Amino acid sequence: MRSHNSRSCGALAAAVVPLAFALTFASLSAAVAAQSTRAQTPSAPDAEAIPAAPSPVLLSREALAGAIGVREMGLRSEEAYQILEELTTEVGQRFAGTAGDRAGVAWAVKKMQALGFSNVRTQEVIVPRWIRGEASFEVLAPYPMNMVTLALGGSIGTPDEGLEAPIVMVQDIAALQALPEGTLRGKIVFFNGRMERTRDGSGYGKAVRSRSEGPSIAGSLGAIGVVIRSVGTSTNRIAHTGTLSYNVSAPRIPAVAISNPDADVLERQVAQTRPNGKAAGQPVTVRLRVTSRDLPQVRSANVIGDIPGTDLANEIVLIGAHLDSWDVGHGVQDDGAGVAIALAAVRAAASVNPKPRRTLRVVLFANEEFGLSGAGRYPISEGDEAVAQHAFAMEADLGDGPVWKLSARVPEPYWAAIDQVHKVVKSLEVELGDNTAAGGADLGPLRRAGVPVIAPQLDASTYFDIHHTVNDTLDQIDPAHLRQSTAVFGVAAYAAAMVDGPVPRLEGERARCAVSRLNNHSHNHSQ
Amino acid sequence: MRSHNSRSCGALAAAVVPLAFALTFASLSAAVAAQSTRAQTPSAPDAEAIPAAPSPVLLSREALAGAIGVREMGLRSEEAYQILEELTTEVGQRFAGTAGDRAGVAWAVKKMQALGFSNVRTQEVIVPRWIRGEASFEVLAPYPMNMVTLALGGSIGTPDEGLEAPIVMVQDIAALQALPEGTLRGKIVFFNGRMERTRDGSGYGKAVRSRSEGPSIAGSLGAIGVVIRSVGTSTNRIAHTGTLSYNVSAPRIPAVAISNPDADVLERQVAQTRPNGKAAGQPVTVRLRVTSRDLPQVRSANVIGDIPGTDLANEIVLIGAHLDSWDVGHGVQDDGAGVAIALAAVRAAASVNPKPRRTLRVVLFANEEFGLSGAGRYPISEGDEAVAQHAFAMEADLGDGPVWKLSARVPEPYWAAIDQVHKVVKSLEVELGDNTAAGGADLGPLRRAGVPVIAPQLDASTYFDIHHTVNDTLDQIDPAHLRQSTAVFGVAAYAAAMVDGPVPRLEGERARCAVSRLNNHSHNHSQ
Repeated sequence: MRSHNSRSCGALAAAVVPLAFALTFASLSAAVAAQSTRAQTPSAPDAEAIPAAPSPVLLSREALAGAIGVREMGLRSEEAYQILEELTTEVGQRFAGTAGDRAGVAWAVKKMQALGFSNVRTQEVIVPRWIRGEASFEVLAPYPMNMVTLALGGSIGTPDEGLEAPIVMVQDIAALQALPEGTLRGKIVFFNGRMERTRDGSGYGKAVRSRSEGPSIAGSLGAIGVVIRSVGTSTNRIAHTGTLSYNVSAPRIPAVAISNPDADVLERQVAQTRPNGKAAGQPVTVRLRVTSRDLPQVRSANVIGDIPGTDLANEIVLIGAHLDSWDVGHGVQDDGAGVAIALAAVRAAASVNPKPRRTLRVVLFANEEFGLSGAGRYPISEGDEAVAQHAFAMEADLGDGPVWKLSARVPEPYWAAIDQVHKVVKSLEVELGDNTAAGGADLGPLRRAGVPVIAPQLDASTYFDIHHTVNDTLDQIDPAHLRQSTAVFGVAAYAAAMVDGPVPRLEGERARCAVSRLNNHSHNHSQ
Repeated sequence: MRSHNSRSCGALAAAVVPLAFALTFASLSAAVAAQSTRAQTPSAPDAEAIPAAPSPVLLSREALAGAIGVREMGLRSEEAYQILEELTTEVGQRFAGTAGDRAGVAWAVKKMQALGFSNVRTQEVIVPRWIRGEASFEVLAPYPMNMVTLALGGSIGTPDEGLEAPIVMVQDIAALQALPEGTLRGKIVFFNGRMERTRDGSGYGKAVRSRSEGPSIAGSLGAIGVVIRSVGTSTNRIAHTGTLSYNVSAPRIPAVAISNPDADVLERQVAQTRPNGKAAGQPVTVRLRVTSRDLPQVRSANVIGDIPGTDLANEIVLIGAHLDSWDVGHGVQDDGAGVAIALAAVRAAASVNPKPRRTLRVVLFANEEFGLSGAGRYPISEGDEAVAQHAFAMEADLGDGPVWKLSARVPEPYWAAIDQVHKVVKSLEVELGDNTAAGGADLGPLRRAGVPVIAPQLDASTYFDIHHTVNDTLDQIDPAHLRQSTAVFGVAAYAAAMVDGPVPRLEGERARCAVSRLNNHSHNHSQ
């Protein structure tokens, strides 16, 4: 899972946005909006639509009964947990371009086939191949100490002997930019800001800027390296990885994260060098060593499978998750849980009567973590016409849940159906959100193409204790959370497949900076 | 902290026990026992002691009032936490023979001086020097995966290319020994037994045998390597280190621990190779690589400081902790907490009136973790006469507490005073234990010399989540626990310094296998 928070977008990044999509869907949008109004008033004469507030689109009584069946099926289902257990036992980490990534793709194809999906297929995606190598971070003075460290994803390496320099401690980018000119020349920047624990994950979005943008900003101010306090809420002595975004116009400098307890120690050492400290006036000097490096790009794949619909089988309800993971954990909460929820939810949705009208499609995206490669590739490989057939899209990429809020970004008339879905799942302690949801990083290109989004929001209160660390393992999963999330995603997917259409396109979301590393090497995104 | 549980002792180990002490103290014991009886009946004529049940030894009213003052002082004291914070900030890990070990000794001398201890001194201790190097453990089949690994303390290394072999999974040593002859030839043994969480730490003693004795037993049965499930209660994906005990008569084979979540995965992979599994009939094949090695022994030191007593200043109440730690964490719970509790408790005890009659001595032992070197050296360097002056000994080596039980191993008449101490600390939720306590690993040589022991037992319920792992950091400390432990240790130390004497010797405890690595290289101990 990546952050969706605001960030500065380079002009280069904006230039590669597929504008063709936006144009295509803007025109489509007007047409289907008119159709939609018709669809809501089937007995009305086939006349010109009168400009008026569109009628709400509601689920039929049969569809609501089916949705309740999906909920009950999801709540009883052990399938999501079984999928996760199997993924952990047979595959483990699935970092882009590794053997684990390839094993994950092979596993997913077999698994979808075994679960009865139709038209199970892989869609080739070219992914970057970054080698983590080793990273060490050592305080040399005033008090020598080794610290637990991981390179940030995409970091360059250091010379074999490492970089030795005094550190400059700041809380965040604003504080860094406020320093007098020349302060950072030849120094290593220590970003010490702490991530705030929040239910909606917003604390991550705020804290992650030091990681994503910090290295290039520090580099442009003369720094030779960056060390950050892990962007995570865990107090375990483990470091948190994730991608940095080198800006093409700034010098590239190596960057690592140290664990939160180590950052505490470093902060206390810095305090000792302040005027009244025991080591007053001394610099805190460190040695940073990183052997990270890039290899040529390699092949990976999106894995796609369908449960065909009935009368609207040519329209798609997409439920996405990403198959790749970071390399340090087992990729269970991020995003094995999403894979499991998506597969089990669709299975639950397909198990009731009346059968889903639209085709339910699970897309397991390649390389979300290190460049959103699969998300970028999907609409290109599918083609504009196929994308136009996507009625709704959903994504699960924030751990095992539970779902605590149901939000969406749907054409106004469809909010009534979202409200109906909420009533079906309200007893599972789900609040009703609003109609401005983003839905997830892998849905970016589809959102920009105007595809409506339904967004069951997963509770992220403890997610960032685990996320992007070695601790992303099966024992951190709560099977009850997984069942609840399966139920809610299942109900939402089922409702999306049942509601009348054609579903209008939305105005395409303004392009964010989600440009694949394949398109440029600026890493201009947060993940 | 090491285990005191039963283990098989080799003849070699038993042979080097300092029997001289046992003899010396057996004779001393009779003499002081007679004196003690006199001391309890100061008005009695100076006649031959009549063989009768000795009168209980009680604390005076003034001493009890002082003890209450110590309790209140300890409960308010932030000193233990400040000591720990300083130790973590300025020193960190203190593994035997490392730069951290030397920094720890220098820090402790300065700290004791700053705290007002008298006669602060170092006592040279020769310690082994083992290099951890790197360890990797990789499953090759049926499902390739890397696992989080640490070498066990003292392990030999492997060839550069590692060892590649099928594994044989067993729960414990008994199961290993029950296997048909030849089963293990050329195999790597996987000890999969789980440690049980207990308040008194007894779960550790049971589980640790696979680590301490397992490698030599497996080696003698033809195995070429050992991997164990981490001996700890943490579900974090971090491995737990600790010392193995090579038996001189068995082939030495390398041994590592994998994290508990990784052991879960390995167990599930093994299950898949069982008759009904997906990989039925296939072996689980792994590659183990370790670069651990021994260097020549180096110098370390016990650090000793006194708070002189008043009328019984020539008698000693020893409060011990160990200054060394494992290399992977910051050495905070094990045993920085003990260091902090010992220093702060003695300070609290010395702060009240009437002043402690006996001298309160803090001994910070060198290299407990990797051979009990300092504990073995202390009585030898001090000499028999000085050891005979030790009225009581105490030790803190099970984390920050709180103390949940007060036990002891004192001459019967002194149990009455222990009962009085208990009444002073009962309100701090301390139970009364019994008179058969061991007191701690570093007290072994003193126990064998007949020195009575007072044992405030620290609550170990969560200690083994942290112990011997990277997670042994300051943020895992509960300052309230530390205050309570300081109060209880302070009261006990104060009472031990105030109670009438001379305190008789006990019959020396039978020697256990705590033979230093310096004396033989069999590592014949659990730690």
